[in-house]
Amino acid sequence: MSADLLSHIRIVLSRTSHPGNIGAAARAMKTMGITSLCLVNPKRPPDAEAEAMASGASDVLHNACVCASLAEALQGTVYALAVSARRRELAYVSADARSAAQLLVAAAQEGEVAIVFGTEMSGLTNEEILQCRAVAHIPADPGYSSLNLAAAVQVLAYEARVAALGAQSFAAANSAPARHEDVENFYIHLEQSLLASGFLDPANPRRLMPRLRRLFGRARLEQEEVNILRGVLKSFGKNT
Amino acid sequence: MSADLLSHIRIVLSRTSHPGNIGAAARAMKTMGITSLCLVNPKRPPDAEAEAMASGASDVLHNACVCASLAEALQGTVYALAVSARRRELAYVSADARSAAQLLVAAAQEGEVAIVFGTEMSGLTNEEILQCRAVAHIPADPGYSSLNLAAAVQVLAYEARVAALGAQSFAAANSAPARHEDVENFYIHLEQSLLASGFLDPANPRRLMPRLRRLFGRARLEQEEVNILRGVLKSFGKNT
Repeated sequence: MSADLLSHIRIVLSRTSHPGNIGAAARAMKTMGITSLCLVNPKRPPDAEAEAMASGASDVLHNACVCASLAEALQGTVYALAVSARRRELAYVSADARSAAQLLVAAAQEGEVAIVFGTEMSGLTNEEILQCRAVAHIPADPGYSSLNLAAAVQVLAYEARVAALGAQSFAAANSAPARHEDVENFYIHLEQSLLASGFLDPANPRRLMPRLRRLFGRARLEQEEVNILRGVLKSFGKNT
Repeated sequence: MSADLLSHIRIVLSRTSHPGNIGAAARAMKTMGITSLCLVNPKRPPDAEAEAMASGASDVLHNACVCASLAEALQGTVYALAVSARRRELAYVSADARSAAQLLVAAAQEGEVAIVFGTEMSGLTNEEILQCRAVAHIPADPGYSSLNLAAAVQVLAYEARVAALGAQSFAAANSAPARHEDVENFYIHLEQSLLASGFLDPANPRRLMPRLRRLFGRARLEQEEVNILRGVLKSFGKNT
């Protein structure tokens, strides 16, 4: 396996507060051979401090895309890994950084993938987590688990690099994996269908949609399967 | 193996130029449960910038010992690992960060051990390397291998922690896995619903049920999820 897989990995930083951290993250990822960076609504755009912290990685900064939403940053990806200091009940799959990086690199053999980091202070929101397929947990000391953002990027990028350099060929899926946006559209269709059928009560949603996301997220839907599931929903909807 | 081993590990920073890097290194090591820090001839001692970068790890800074030589910093250790961006011919043993951390942790079962980092610009001297038992090499991108000092400390401390704890995976299911017969009853219910909705044509079934079995089989349904899915089918069926 080769470092080529690393070109399929993008680092997504959501709502970062300090430009210096963006620069340090750019440097961290570039040392591991990952150069695609997406910034979702940075509080402040990269500036001179970001440049200084990026050191020799200012090309990564200059080529970074800036997105208005996480959905936009994940467009075209077949797999997204959320990085969280806390364990998340809702997560489809929760794994330590090493196992998660192996899953990510396996998915990178099929298309574009992302590693998603939240804000310095509070990390990712539940809504952001739910847009990802799995959660990666860095096994920090429970008494002091406060990794600097760039340090967390360094650990995940390092694990991704080690996994990519050591990865075997994984069994291919039967058909192409579904794209992020197509899976999201399926969830919208599913939610509308459940509202129409009365199973989903908007006044008392009982975490139904997060649970269904978790289920289908675990399955890692293929493109054809999304088409089938939407056909199924359509057929049910005809009669409601 | 246990986290107790981490208390046998000291981080040694030799001739560091920037106090901010000492603070950031203190934070990085503490997140991994390593709290013993030795500074060998720092160009400038820890200051306000070091405190700021240490964030919640200022105790590590305050308890750091300052030594006049590497020999003094390594006193009492049974094993010392030199971290180098370059491969070193002189080294007795050269290993990647992961293997090196495993050797280090094995040695930590017998006594005190050290991980030794050189200056920001030029790393460790050959004389320093020769005082260590092995060299650890972080497998960075050959085109840009310039890890920030604290980032290198983060990677080695992370590998040491993982080696000490043994990697854990948190992929535990949220609820009990579904029993075979309950999953089969779900498939029967699903098939009946699809026949009723017209999506499944008995004259031309197009392998629809095997495909859906494959999808849900991959997800490894939990008991609660089967209950939810049957509720969903029931709600759709009411109107057909």
